[in-house]
Parts: sequence; structure tokens; C-alpha cells
Amino acid sequence: MDPARLRVVLVAPRNPLNIGAAARAMSNFGLARLRLVNPYQVAYQEARSAVHATHILDQAEEYDSLAEAVSDCTLVVGTTAAGRRELQHPVRRLEYGARLVRKALASAPVALLFGSEKYGLSNDDLSHCHWLVRIPARQEHGSMNLGQAVAVCLYELIRDSRLAAKQPEKSRRADAAGMESFTTLLLEVLEECGYVHPRVAASTERKVRRLVRRLDLSARDAEIWLGILRQIQWRMRSE
Amino acid sequence: MDPARLRVVLVAPRNPLNIGAAARAMSNFGLARLRLVNPYQVAYQEARSAVHATHILDQAEEYDSLAEAVSDCTLVVGTTAAGRRELQHPVRRLEYGARLVRKALASAPVALLFGSEKYGLSNDDLSHCHWLVRIPARQEHGSMNLGQAVAVCLYELIRDSRLAAKQPEKSRRADAAGMESFTTLLLEVLEECGYVHPRVAASTERKVRRLVRRLDLSARDAEIWLGILRQIQWRMRSE
Repeated sequence: MDPARLRVVLVAPRNPLNIGAAARAMSNFGLARLRLVNPYQVAYQEARSAVHATHILDQAEEYDSLAEAVSDCTLVVGTTAAGRRELQHPVRRLEYGARLVRKALASAPVALLFGSEKYGLSNDDLSHCHWLVRIPARQEHGSMNLGQAVAVCLYELIRDSRLAAKQPEKSRRADAAGMESFTTLLLEVLEECGYVHPRVAASTERKVRRLVRRLDLSARDAEIWLGILRQIQWRMRSE
Repeated sequence: MDPARLRVVLVAPRNPLNIGAAARAMSNFGLARLRLVNPYQVAYQEARSAVHATHILDQAEEYDSLAEAVSDCTLVVGTTAAGRRELQHPVRRLEYGARLVRKALASAPVALLFGSEKYGLSNDDLSHCHWLVRIPARQEHGSMNLGQAVAVCLYELIRDSRLAAKQPEKSRRADAAGMESFTTLLLEVLEECGYVHPRVAASTERKVRRLVRRLDLSARDAEIWLGILRQIQWRMRSE
């Protein structure tokens, strides 16, 4: 996908903090094109003059109508809260809808619409949409904060699904010789401090060896623990 | 995973709006256990008394030290901004780290730590962590708003990756007979309104047929268009 082709459209936003938060999330995730339709002017000016205002807000475009704001887009996707009823559009969960948006962004501009804090998108706004996405929030509390909803949608668009499936990385584990040196030294220390008897029973030795293996130490940490044990042994012998 | 096992831990949060936003995102995504370590008291009280305060905030637990706040957890994961340097811990991208957290939640409590708005987690805080996750924001602007960072992390934990891979749903398309009725009626209307000549050339008829096929109408929309054309024809004939 080409992130430069995404237009984030806020319809009638009323809270300067939300406008600022939407712009901040866009900057975090590398998206630049913010459009506002009929923003509450006091809020818009306040957001633009805030200390942490981003370049995204400086370059935001303002429109009088939603039709103008999405006129260059070939796909227009609205966002809706979970549990809203009587929608005339297909509603897709974000995980799946975002895939379709990414695919569309490969060839043409796409608009992603967010309604006002209080009412969401109106039925008039929705009639400009091809379909809707909903963030998978709980039915009982589906209405998200505007700035958070923008952040979650943009994150889903830029996240790398291959990473989610990757195999756990392995750090280099200590080899058997390293673990055996550690076990031997630990047994010496345990004898010298009186934790076990000098002529330790073979079964106890095996218990300690398994105890050490279960630590599953990395090669680097095994070195650190060996150093600690040597120091303890030196200290005990010099008393 | 068992969402009830996740503890969201805010360390030294200072902004009541962020505390409220974190609690709201938790409520949206069905997570209940919020813990605060040394919150700025004015902010905490203000967040609790806010109009939209959630039950999450009422039930939040307050601690004097991070060690106490995570004492019942078998995995402690810190969050960090992109681009922060000199971290002594493995840092995993959220897509992958969240999978490991989900897996751990299947058997035991896990703490997910968020630092203060200004400084993030301190080196002292980080030493309580097994490893760190970072949200894949841009290197140039990696620092996210606290409320938005919480929302994005929780969303990644609860999202359904199977949905992202599902095949596009198919609505029932109009069958060939339906499309042919539509084509025939359209050709009649085009002749009657003078758009094409009465004895339309076979090539034009084929063009119109392909034009109609490209509409790729659903069975239901094909019915609507047939009704529209019939009405137009009736109106033109009655003039």
C-alpha cells in the first residue's frame, strides 16, 4: 500500500484535544493527509495553536462538505461503533476491513471517515461510504474516544502481520560443558557452605544438575553466574 | 488467553485525561484490572471524578512501588517508544510481543507497563521487566500519547488474526437472466430517448451488454435498477 494515498477525514470534530490526538497518531504512523469537514472552529484553531501541534495539522485541509472532502478518493470507508443499529451498509471488522483498504491503497486514494465525538457519522455522511469498519470493542461499551479510534485504525493499517506469525527468536544458550562447569562449581560451594554434606550422595548431585539445567541460561548469563560463584567461593575460603 | 489475567499498570501518570483514556480503552476492549503506581494524586482524583469515568477507574488499585504492583504476575512486559536507545532488554515489536503475551495469559497473570507521559519507564522500572514491546511508530516520531498507546496495545491483544485472513464475503450477484432482462430494458429506453438509433447495430448492443455486466450488480440492486428503468420508460411513453 502507499500510505500517502490515505486521507483521514474528521467530520465535524468538536474537541481540540481529539483533533490534536488524531494528528499525533497520524504522525506516529507515518500518514500525512488530514482533512476536516466543518470542524468546530474554536476547537480547530485551538488544536492548531497547541504546544504539541504537529506538521500534520498545519497541512490539514478544510472542507465545507463531505462530498468535496472525498472527491478524489475511489474508496470511501466510514467508521462506526459496535452495536449501532440499522446500518444500511456492509460492516466489516477492522482486522478484515483494513486488509481491503491496504489493497485499495495500492492503486488509488482511499478516505477513512471518523464522525463527531458525540454522534458519530450521520446517515447523510454514511451515504457517501462504500462500506463501514468497526473496531472490535465490546457491545456493551463500543463507543471509543475519537483520538484512540484513529490510533487503533491507523495501527491496524500499518501493522506487519508477518511479524505476528514469526518464530520466537533464540538467544544462544549455554552449552553442556558450560552448564557442567557451573554445576561442579555450585556443588563445591554448596559443600563448603554446609548446604550439603561433603560426600554428597549421587542422587543429590543429580538433583542439583537438573536444577541448573532448568535455569535454561544463555551463554552470556552462564558466564556471569560462574563469576558470582567463584567470588562467593573465594570469599568463603578467605574467612 | 484469559483477559481477566492482564494487569494494565500505569507508572507515575500525571495527566487525568490520559488516566481516563487508558481506563476507557480497557473498558472498550473488555479488560478490567487497572493498577497505578505513584500516580500524581491531583490527576488521579480528577480522573476518578470525571463525567465519563468508568467502573475500571473505580476498581483501580493503587501501589507505592512497582514491585508490589506486579508481585502476582509471572510475566512483566514494559512498553517503550521507538528510537529509545541503550535498552538492556530484548525489545519486540507489538505484533509479535502481543502473541507471546496472549500465550502467557493462557496460564498466569501478566503485567503490561506504561511509563509516565514525559519520561516513559525509568531504568529502575525497566529492571522489573522480562522484556519490552514497542509500537511500530516512526523512528522520527515514536513517542505516542499515553491513552492512544494503551488503546493500540490492548487492541493488538484482542484482535482476531483469523479475520484478517478471511476470504472476501460474496453477496448474491444477479444471475444472467436478470442481467439480460436489464440489458433488454435498457436498450429499449436508450432507443426511446434517442440515445441510440431504433435499429441498433449488433456491435452497440454488445457494448451495452458488456457495460451492464461490468456493473456487477447484486441480485437485490438489479431489481431496484429494473424498477427505475421501468418507471423512466413509463414516464417517457406517457409524455
